[in-house]
Amino acid sequence: MQYPEPIAKLIDSYMRLPGIGNKTATRLAFFTIDMNQDDVDQFAKSLVAAKKDLHYCSICGNITDEDPCEIDRDQTRDQSQVLVVEQVKDLMSIERMNDYHGLYHVLHGVLSPIEGLGPEDLNIESLIKRLQTNEAIKEVILATNATPEGEATAMYLARLIKPAGIKVTRLAHGLAVGSDIEYADEMTLLKAVEGRTEL
Amino acid sequence: MQYPEPIAKLIDSYMRLPGIGNKTATRLAFFTIDMNQDDVDQFAKSLVAAKKDLHYCSICGNITDEDPCEIDRDQTRDQSQVLVVEQVKDLMSIERMNDYHGLYHVLHGVLSPIEGLGPEDLNIESLIKRLQTNEAIKEVILATNATPEGEATAMYLARLIKPAGIKVTRLAHGLAVGSDIEYADEMTLLKAVEGRTEL
Repeated sequence: MQYPEPIAKLIDSYMRLPGIGNKTATRLAFFTIDMNQDDVDQFAKSLVAAKKDLHYCSICGNITDEDPCEIDRDQTRDQSQVLVVEQVKDLMSIERMNDYHGLYHVLHGVLSPIEGLGPEDLNIESLIKRLQTNEAIKEVILATNATPEGEATAMYLARLIKPAGIKVTRLAHGLAVGSDIEYADEMTLLKAVEGRTEL
Repeated sequence: MQYPEPIAKLIDSYMRLPGIGNKTATRLAFFTIDMNQDDVDQFAKSLVAAKKDLHYCSICGNITDEDPCEIDRDQTRDQSQVLVVEQVKDLMSIERMNDYHGLYHVLHGVLSPIEGLGPEDLNIESLIKRLQTNEAIKEVILATNATPEGEATAMYLARLIKPAGIKVTRLAHGLAVGSDIEYADEMTLLKAVEGRTEL
């Protein structure tokens, strides 16, 4: 016997999600059948709504249901700083810190020759245009990940932006707070020593 | 900034699924936004359809879109054997083996005093009724898991069914095919030695 069609289709749908294989999809499908009706309806509705109502902000690339996004509409934010991140999730992490009050720019990826991702695949053109047309911006903070691809993207952007006379900074490298030196890798230790501060 | 409402709701929906926490739900939600429209619509539809169209078979407890289920409707199957499993997934595993051609009964759980699950919470009453009213059934094969709860449930059912004069059997315990003796636990080895067969 095969699974009845409705559950086979649901398993198939779950399997399209990243990191979910056959076994997990089956478990989730059976769980769905036992969920209460309201939750399932809500789930279905939120799937369709998220796809329909969400767009990328035309200014910064942040995810939003209104254009421009909440951050770009907020005139109380520091209009002189733009912090560049790879993904919307990174933007959310910085926001959660509750200490940065400038603007953002989301690249939606990093330069990755292996995956065939060049500058034209990222949200870079709109960043350059933004810097050229908006004279209020005095500093670009490059907050791409501390991975080889993130570093390369930061270097590329720095070379692109610096000639325009805008200050370009990069997040500090060093030991994570609460971490042991014993377990830090050599590169991190090197950066931590290089970037030591006077007490 | 908070996530826009549509994505916050979708993250919340994903988090209701078992084994999916905040981080994974966020990843899935962002993935959903980048999925193509058809896939998302199909996903939403299959969720609602699975919940609406699927029921448990009134005879055996299998999941089905028609009652009775495909297996119970199939008169070519051996009507004298009923194999008792904990979950529909177990039934599917046995079916995939393609060697058992009898009927099934799905308990939808095991006896578990710790979780407060007694006989009345399982699909046991209908099994007893079925055995009382259907004289064709000659053997009940207990295929609950080889866990303490599965064993206890099997013992409970055996004591319940045997007095009716129906043959009750249990799946064999022993070494998994392809496994190393070195890595087998003591209980499995004990059962394997006890149940040794002559060559």
